[in-house]
Amino acid sequence: VDQRVQDIGEQGLLQRLQRFCPADIIGDDAARLTPAPGLDLVISTDMLVDGVHFSEQTTTPEDVGWRAAAANLSDLAAMGATPLGLTLALGIPNDHPVVWIERLYQGLHACLTAYGTVLLGGDLSRSPCPILSITALGQVAPHQAIHRHRAHPGDAIVVTGAHGASRAGLELLLNPQALDQWGNDLSASDRQGLILAHQRPCPRLDVITTLRQHFPQARVAGMDSSDGLADAVVQICRASQVGARLDSTALPIPTSLRAAAHLSATQVQAWCLYGGEDFQLVLCLNPELATELVSYLGPAAKIIGTITAEPVVELITPTEVISLSLAAGFQHF
Amino acid sequence: VDQRVQDIGEQGLLQRLQRFCPADIIGDDAARLTPAPGLDLVISTDMLVDGVHFSEQTTTPEDVGWRAAAANLSDLAAMGATPLGLTLALGIPNDHPVVWIERLYQGLHACLTAYGTVLLGGDLSRSPCPILSITALGQVAPHQAIHRHRAHPGDAIVVTGAHGASRAGLELLLNPQALDQWGNDLSASDRQGLILAHQRPCPRLDVITTLRQHFPQARVAGMDSSDGLADAVVQICRASQVGARLDSTALPIPTSLRAAAHLSATQVQAWCLYGGEDFQLVLCLNPELATELVSYLGPAAKIIGTITAEPVVELITPTEVISLSLAAGFQHF
Repeated sequence: VDQRVQDIGEQGLLQRLQRFCPADIIGDDAARLTPAPGLDLVISTDMLVDGVHFSEQTTTPEDVGWRAAAANLSDLAAMGATPLGLTLALGIPNDHPVVWIERLYQGLHACLTAYGTVLLGGDLSRSPCPILSITALGQVAPHQAIHRHRAHPGDAIVVTGAHGASRAGLELLLNPQALDQWGNDLSASDRQGLILAHQRPCPRLDVITTLRQHFPQARVAGMDSSDGLADAVVQICRASQVGARLDSTALPIPTSLRAAAHLSATQVQAWCLYGGEDFQLVLCLNPELATELVSYLGPAAKIIGTITAEPVVELITPTEVISLSLAAGFQHF
Repeated sequence: VDQRVQDIGEQGLLQRLQRFCPADIIGDDAARLTPAPGLDLVISTDMLVDGVHFSEQTTTPEDVGWRAAAANLSDLAAMGATPLGLTLALGIPNDHPVVWIERLYQGLHACLTAYGTVLLGGDLSRSPCPILSITALGQVAPHQAIHRHRAHPGDAIVVTGAHGASRAGLELLLNPQALDQWGNDLSASDRQGLILAHQRPCPRLDVITTLRQHFPQARVAGMDSSDGLADAVVQICRASQVGARLDSTALPIPTSLRAAAHLSATQVQAWCLYGGEDFQLVLCLNPELATELVSYLGPAAKIIGTITAEPVVELITPTEVISLSLAAGFQHF
């Protein structure tokens, strides 16, 4: 029952994990698949380390697997690509519980299944602490690829959903006092919604489907907001050598946080701009198309500002103009 | 001069490492490339951990990078594929020297350049010890893919080069007494050759080029010998539900080891069969084609035995018949 990795060895572990991989793909030194003709390949890779990117306090093993898959699928969505699958290299200590690994694979597999894609194989290795390394593969028609460097002055800036929810959920998980301070302003289901935003983020591959269906020829610049909404806007502006003007009253603040009487507006705005890990998309395109896109995506999507020629990123509030910088993004070292 | 990762941060590190990545590929959430039409995609992934897969005692940082790239390119060769590129996710402690990382990338880049391929991007993360996770991408015409499960009784078993050299080189690096025991039987350049076999293995992508050029339609089963020659033969036999008979006098023992008077024949044979990490290919094909292939590949390649219908793997020596099992392969846990 309480089996450790060393009890069943690499072969035993591989046997347990095989069920998460399509049988026709594995069994050789590498996986093989047939991409659709005429499409470009998109490749993204990510390393997640226990204690740095996840912890027992905030995520179950299933959540770790789900989040890892979701973050990588979000990188594909950020490029306008649809997923072909992903590989997982997993490092684990000798005495790590086998059930933890199985639960991780279950969460990963659940996310892949939810987004219609598969595990293309992987590797298992001994390591000092649990470490996941994921590489996601996707495909995109060359003219439909989304790049950071293609924003033009005059473009509307569309965000696809609420920002700050993941950060607020993390706060509820990490800080027990948060419940007394502001958590109790929210209903139990609103609190659960914020926590799930952190534990089970949803990559916006649906937005890519909508874009292709309605705007197959449109120029779309953008990226995902994994490192925060402000970071995404600044990165796009840097790459495109443009600036942006954001309307503070249009920021995509989660509805539930607006209602929290004991949360300052400043705190909520900071989480929205700098919280990160919401895995939404920030897209820049022609304003008429942007309005149309927002109508297809429903109430959670909105236009938050405009791309400008002058290379500064400003937040326009009713009382002042604030310059945004990249300083608050997640630093790995 | 003695800069640590924490001194320059993630952005500083990324700036230093950008030169190892083609400028037109990076800069977005993911890399994008155009595969050749009609070819299948091949994906392999590998995690390498300091103290498990490499160590300061046996490999310089450049060697670690070279070996990591070579092992993954060898997985592509094992599938009959040519490389499209690879991604590197690197985990490193905060206080790790920046120069170590740059040297690792130099070694990786040197190997990729030697085999005409590129780094497709990657990820940097904090971790308790240096950890590399590599995903290699290749492409292959569907009918030219090499699989383990396609060996037929009557096939000749071709190996593409010497086996045991990497293991002997490792012995010279790890065990100072080896020099007195048998190392001094060898010339300095022979010793250096064994050490280089360990530190700078050469993936046999050239063999794939030869196969395509001369036998574009041939059925070829096989894999690489990264976990040892015996392991490769046993894995192919298992997957193909066949057996094999190997001729002990035909084993691809490194010439330099044959000459070492103070090394027992038993030891040399064990390194040849079970040593691993020679990153050669073990291929099964029609005997006439095999003879022809060996003539194209030159003296290092040879036929070492035959695939049989009875599912056992036997080594035929002048005096006895020895059953080979998988037990001696590299165990990660």
